[in-house]
Amino acid sequence: MFKFQVLKEDFFTGARLGIIETPRYRAYTPLFMPVGTLGAVKTLSPHDLRDLGATIILANTYHLYLRPGHDVVRELGGLHRFMGWERLILTDSGGFQVYSLSPLKKVGPQGVEFRSHLDGSMHFLTPEKAIEIQESLGSDIMMVLDECLPYPCSENKAKASLKLTNAWAKRSLVAKRGPGALFGIVQGSFYHHLRQQAVEELVEMGFDGFAIGGLSVGEPPELMYEMADFTASLLPQEKPRYLMGVGRPQDLVEAVSLGIDLFDCVIPTRNARNGTLFTWQGPMSIKKACYTKDPLPPDPRCTCYTCRHFSRAYLRHLYMNNEILGLRLNTIHNLHFYLTLMEKMRQAIAQNRLAAFKREFLAQYGGDHGKVPQKD
Amino acid sequence: MFKFQVLKEDFFTGARLGIIETPRYRAYTPLFMPVGTLGAVKTLSPHDLRDLGATIILANTYHLYLRPGHDVVRELGGLHRFMGWERLILTDSGGFQVYSLSPLKKVGPQGVEFRSHLDGSMHFLTPEKAIEIQESLGSDIMMVLDECLPYPCSENKAKASLKLTNAWAKRSLVAKRGPGALFGIVQGSFYHHLRQQAVEELVEMGFDGFAIGGLSVGEPPELMYEMADFTASLLPQEKPRYLMGVGRPQDLVEAVSLGIDLFDCVIPTRNARNGTLFTWQGPMSIKKACYTKDPLPPDPRCTCYTCRHFSRAYLRHLYMNNEILGLRLNTIHNLHFYLTLMEKMRQAIAQNRLAAFKREFLAQYGGDHGKVPQKD
Repeated sequence: MFKFQVLKEDFFTGARLGIIETPRYRAYTPLFMPVGTLGAVKTLSPHDLRDLGATIILANTYHLYLRPGHDVVRELGGLHRFMGWERLILTDSGGFQVYSLSPLKKVGPQGVEFRSHLDGSMHFLTPEKAIEIQESLGSDIMMVLDECLPYPCSENKAKASLKLTNAWAKRSLVAKRGPGALFGIVQGSFYHHLRQQAVEELVEMGFDGFAIGGLSVGEPPELMYEMADFTASLLPQEKPRYLMGVGRPQDLVEAVSLGIDLFDCVIPTRNARNGTLFTWQGPMSIKKACYTKDPLPPDPRCTCYTCRHFSRAYLRHLYMNNEILGLRLNTIHNLHFYLTLMEKMRQAIAQNRLAAFKREFLAQYGGDHGKVPQKD
Repeated sequence: MFKFQVLKEDFFTGARLGIIETPRYRAYTPLFMPVGTLGAVKTLSPHDLRDLGATIILANTYHLYLRPGHDVVRELGGLHRFMGWERLILTDSGGFQVYSLSPLKKVGPQGVEFRSHLDGSMHFLTPEKAIEIQESLGSDIMMVLDECLPYPCSENKAKASLKLTNAWAKRSLVAKRGPGALFGIVQGSFYHHLRQQAVEELVEMGFDGFAIGGLSVGEPPELMYEMADFTASLLPQEKPRYLMGVGRPQDLVEAVSLGIDLFDCVIPTRNARNGTLFTWQGPMSIKKACYTKDPLPPDPRCTCYTCRHFSRAYLRHLYMNNEILGLRLNTIHNLHFYLTLMEKMRQAIAQNRLAAFKREFLAQYGGDHGKVPQKD
């Protein structure tokens, strides 16, 4: 059911142009997945997402399991129908939110026990349960339950954790019943030999694709790039590679060059709601007083709905007055930027000019690229 | 520039089908104006409003005067351009918000001194200033500054206040420079002879239309209808009549029957954000547990974007999780209901069957019509 094909490799970088095909939809890679935590990309309708050219979104299993419950979603025909989205959905396993949101969690060989951050109720998430939930949601691409490690992490801890993670990966494959694809997740912290072991074991098991987990957890960007590079180089050419939770525009450009195919991150949507707009000259904070009377669109080169119709002055006015419309207009702009960035990279790969694109992008995006302004 | 024409009078009620024409746009009456307090109808883009068939919105002079300031809006080309709305805009005078929002206000013959509810700064609003602000915004239909009275109000107070209000009305006419239309506001509290005096004096002055003010301020609905009926019957046939701040669906049906042409109210938009959806069977609260697994749209008879694409279960899920998308989808539904209600009434008037429409509407809308569920 799930097919991935590399259509073209860039001559001068590790980047690949590819295509994911399922009975539901096809999506070109490299691609970016907007995050729709609770079955909605915050502020946007599924039609907004379609108009933006999104082909796949990420939904959070942990959140949907707690509210409204995967049984409710299944009874209502699955997540696609529930939220009115006909294109692809990738779901995470729920593990990352258990580790980051639950006030109490206990990892054992069978799975992870945790307390809901909403009502304090106790739950037990196993690899099998994670698959069951994702299949109830009707996910197109599911992720195995893994253990997420902090940075830094001792080698012994990382080694023991990897053993657990890979045992869970195997159980996930066995548990899978439906047509959804299943991706393994490469862990191993920041130890090369553990990453190598992780890849070898997961490849042997036979997944539809591989995620690189355990990165972007507080380490310096250079270390993240280095580990992503190393891990990507070990992964089979013919399977899609997903760098989870990354990242900033410059991270995407770097990681695509290393041969990564899929990305998700809350940065474009969350920053939009904080008043930060991405432009080809770097991020801008729409709340600055200098925009009070500025009649220009956020990015005069941008063709998004927001930039075609509204001025910095109006967007600042909406932001300063907590008008909900502003949150949506900012989100549309930022996702348009991210999705256009991916489209430009796909074109560049097709023409063997990704290295040049990367150079030009980073030069324009500014010396402080990566510096997303913090909320005041 | 501003033209109003009664196209048809209903045989059996006081209702009229009319048309407002300005160089910018034409709008059929009776009509409902969504409230766009700060230059945005909360949660909606101007394109959403256009898709809904809105022909005119109301913007609040008080709010725009304080933020971003009418000078800023004027410099940016006026409110239509600022917010991207090409159809009609009616502005209030700012008076009502001064009385209801300002923590300190002092009414004198010249105008009203007030303290901003935002930063505590002092301001002085005169009839002339209210016109200047509204002309800076580029309003299509402006309102005179008036004094708003509470209910109940002694006859002496109401009499003195009417004198002030009508003196201000005269000054407003003198102050007007631009092409915008100007409506007088009929006050007089709940005293018939004062209402009559108000109408006589205002008609003598020669306004483009007349608003009925000072109603819907806490009095019983029957008293509101009675005063609106009495006042409307005194107003000239050939000028539009605007019942300010009204109201619930059943209020609109009653008031149209009395010959009112224009309405504005925050009920459809504010209640949408509180999870109340209007249907032809009466209002429903989308947060009720009984909708958890309900696959039906909010109103199976409704053709709005929300009802065409989303279930009660999904809308409840969005509401319960504070998803911003839910606020917009609810707002679209409620405004579609209000605007469709007006459209149905216009059709009914054209066919002399408004009385029958009113009877059928009220029978369907339910015994507790008017009972908008309160927020839990």
